Amino acid sequence: MNYNNPFFKKNNNVRIIDVLKALNIKNLKIKNIKLNDIKELDQANTNDITFFNSTKYIDLLKKTKSKILMTTNKYRNLVSKDLTVIPVHNVFLAVAKITELFYPDSLNDSFDKNVSIIKKNKFKNLKYGKNVLIGKNVKIGKNCSIGHNSIIESNVIIGDNCIIGSNVIIKKAIIDKNVKILDGAIIGKKGFGFLPSKNVNISYPHIGMVLIGKNVEIGCNNTIDRGSLSNTIIGDNTFLDNQVHIAHNVKIGKNCSIAGQVGFAGSSLLGNNIMIGGQAGISGHIKIGNNVKIGGGSGVVKNIPDNTNVMGYPAKDIRNFLKDNKNG
Amino acid sequence: MNYNNPFFKKNNNVRIIDVLKALNIKNLKIKNIKLNDIKELDQANTNDITFFNSTKYIDLLKKTKSKILMTTNKYRNLVSKDLTVIPVHNVFLAVAKITELFYPDSLNDSFDKNVSIIKKNKFKNLKYGKNVLIGKNVKIGKNCSIGHNSIIESNVIIGDNCIIGSNVIIKKAIIDKNVKILDGAIIGKKGFGFLPSKNVNISYPHIGMVLIGKNVEIGCNNTIDRGSLSNTIIGDNTFLDNQVHIAHNVKIGKNCSIAGQVGFAGSSLLGNNIMIGGQAGISGHIKIGNNVKIGGGSGVVKNIPDNTNVMGYPAKDIRNFLKDNKNG
Amino acid sequence: MNYNNPFFKKNNNVRIIDVLKALNIKNLKIKNIKLNDIKELDQANTNDITFFNSTKYIDLLKKTKSKILMTTNKYRNLVSKDLTVIPVHNVFLAVAKITELFYPDSLNDSFDKNVSIIKKNKFKNLKYGKNVLIGKNVKIGKNCSIGHNSIIESNVIIGDNCIIGSNVIIKKAIIDKNVKILDGAIIGKKGFGFLPSKNVNISYPHIGMVLIGKNVEIGCNNTIDRGSLSNTIIGDNTFLDNQVHIAHNVKIGKNCSIAGQVGFAGSSLLGNNIMIGGQAGISGHIKIGNNVKIGGGSGVVKNIPDNTNVMGYPAKDIRNFLKDNKNG
Repeated sequence: MNYNNPFFKKNNNVRIIDVLKALNIKNLKIKNIKLNDIKELDQANTNDITFFNSTKYIDLLKKTKSKILMTTNKYRNLVSKDLTVIPVHNVFLAVAKITELFYPDSLNDSFDKNVSIIKKNKFKNLKYGKNVLIGKNVKIGKNCSIGHNSIIESNVIIGDNCIIGSNVIIKKAIIDKNVKILDGAIIGKKGFGFLPSKNVNISYPHIGMVLIGKNVEIGCNNTIDRGSLSNTIIGDNTFLDNQVHIAHNVKIGKNCSIAGQVGFAGSSLLGNNIMIGGQAGISGHIKIGNNVKIGGGSGVVKNIPDNTNVMGYPAKDIRNFLKDNKNG
Repeated sequence: MNYNNPFFKKNNNVRIIDVLKALNIKNLKIKNIKLNDIKELDQANTNDITFFNSTKYIDLLKKTKSKILMTTNKYRNLVSKDLTVIPVHNVFLAVAKITELFYPDSLNDSFDKNVSIIKKNKFKNLKYGKNVLIGKNVKIGKNCSIGHNSIIESNVIIGDNCIIGSNVIIKKAIIDKNVKILDGAIIGKKGFGFLPSKNVNISYPHIGMVLIGKNVEIGCNNTIDRGSLSNTIIGDNTFLDNQVHIAHNVKIGKNCSIAGQVGFAGSSLLGNNIMIGGQAGISGHIKIGNNVKIGGGSGVVKNIPDNTNVMGYPAKDIRNFLKDNKNG
Repeated sequence: MNYNNPFFKKNNNVRIIDVLKALNIKNLKIKNIKLNDIKELDQANTNDITFFNSTKYIDLLKKTKSKILMTTNKYRNLVSKDLTVIPVHNVFLAVAKITELFYPDSLNDSFDKNVSIIKKNKFKNLKYGKNVLIGKNVKIGKNCSIGHNSIIESNVIIGDNCIIGSNVIIKKAIIDKNVKILDGAIIGKKGFGFLPSKNVNISYPHIGMVLIGKNVEIGCNNTIDRGSLSNTIIGDNTFLDNQVHIAHNVKIGKNCSIAGQVGFAGSSLLGNNIMIGGQAGISGHIKIGNNVKIGGGSGVVKNIPDNTNVMGYPAKDIRNFLKDNKNG
């Protein structure tokens, strides 16, 4: 799935001088080139500004195509001489500021004022309920249905043969064909990302989307947050039960089955053919391989290799779990 | 509670020949009798077709009144000579197909197109909010109230003195008197049942109902799924706190108290006078006796006898739990 | 935050004789004074009636300003001679009855019949969506926004610069400035409090409010119940992720960060600067100090002192948790 982001308008006139001004940096001599965008290390191209904040990403740092990077003095020496470094005190705070420079609307999380009651015959063979609200430039494929009181905010794209339930809210999302989104699900809300700060936390921008593959089913009252800089992704033919929570930037593969009340913290990466039992929790920033089974109620706190069957809190190989609990 | 299912129209002209055709079975000589319905082993009568897929149900197999049964070759020899066997490769797939034969609408999970804004004086002493949507043939008892934006789909039955909150969705449910259903609850959605299949999972039919006994309270944002072939049942005077998830076919007894965020996987059977602490999880297909107490956060993965007090993950007798954790 | 409760009208003519009559107590000679209110031990003033039901609160009993108290014969001797004791069989049942005497509407949990579609220009610089319902005497500060289908029930107070999402329900709540309440959140529903009783549980009154401090963020599909006799409180600059459940009377301090699907049982008291990972559960009636970190998935069942880092189920000091699980 490779889409341009239709949800946030980019300022195409950001120059180095604007970045330095936003960061309140003086006396730094850099060529005042025009910047294209702000991107994570592995996503950035030559004219994108990027950032480095943890040795965990040292491999990505070595491979980035970006030529200009924000980091702290602590990590400065890890950066190749080919890159221009903009030194900052707090990388995430700098990223928040520069993202807002490129995307002035990146922190607006008010409701979509451009919706209106759906108009008859606007979409092909669409069945729709009472009080359905549709934003501007929404695209809906053939033979879809949308239940009562549901809200599809501006620029959302929905493929053919999708079934959207009642009381659903969809924003900042691109949905492939044959997808079911059941009652009460909330898709595309900004993630739970902020810079803690006494008295007034600082919001972190969320310009990512939610991308939902074909043949996916999303259960009732799910909450699937959009990404911060990257996207939140649900792969083809993955099914989610009720009350599942998926935080920002999580990427789930194909053919997965995720039972009720499972929760994912941010930025984890899951493979294909994964089965997760009810109420399991997946920590943030971890990697789970293909063909993994995670028992109900487990708490997964570290990477899980392919073809593994884990259970427990913290989750371990199921054989060890059963051995440890044989007298239960 | 014994009700006919008013939610799915049955095809009363299903004959053996239709079954064989749907299953793509040729050259099997069976008398082409007319079949009444498809039922689980213990629910089936003489003219109902049934199925057998696990030795776990061997006792029910011996007692079934059905005379015609689908199973795999593996289990064929376990079936009494008195029964006609229809051999299938995948029992659940066969059940899905035959259920759809009897109930052509069993896989439709689109919103109810027959609802309309509630009409004044249609129901006796009913208090109702703004934008309340009511389906066809809905029955509502005396002195009820229904909050704003709530949706009661066609054929739902609600008893006297019930209080339904705002933003509630009720479908495929029969609700006894004096029941409270709080804001945002979703009752009667199809369960999370499907046959995993690469690229396109196959939906499993859900023709069961949700039956809610008298004096029950259902908390905010609960999701209570209807049954697949049997019903999901909440017994009299059982109270559920907020964000509880109850999967298909779960049967809960009377006078139970179930705290916030508890989750039940499918088909478990619970007795009376059970207390379950917050966030506990109950695995599928298990049996929990009467007067059981389950501590908050527990994960119950096996049957629990009457009068037992358990805690932990996996849940064990609370005395053992406390002993194991005395240095916590 | 110190507010009068604008949500429940108090009967100001309750005398001792009314209390005795409601409790069906005869032949008890007490001066028939007029009572002001019913309050918990530490909140009661001279003319308020209070109650005592557990030696856990013996310190509060010694310090109460109340002069009249309900308790069982079992605890009678613990009460100072300066207080008049009204002996009861079941303290909570008595409290429920007397609370209803003071607040005749304390058990009504039907939807607010006084709401109507929001009127243009009623609130200063308010942006609002479709189908927004507003009760009587609602106060909304400057520059707020309220999303589609949201319901603000009567007497709710909302400060300046608040952003309320779509499908939100707010009742019995007072909300300070700069607060965000995201889509689908339900604030101020009565708590899960009742006196278990075979066949028909007895509802416990909830006359408390939800008080939300400034700069708070409440995630999607959160459920935050109002208090029974005291209030449920979320302190300034505390952020809650999606699907968090907060039961009645919980009091959370300032600058806390609470991740997705965390649940709080009733009446717990939390300090400032607390971080709680996803899916953690906090038992009822416990006290958690300042600067505490609670790992994701933990189950906290006892008091946690200041500056502690805990994890596990039951939660223990993280160093012990890691030691116990080093072979995980």
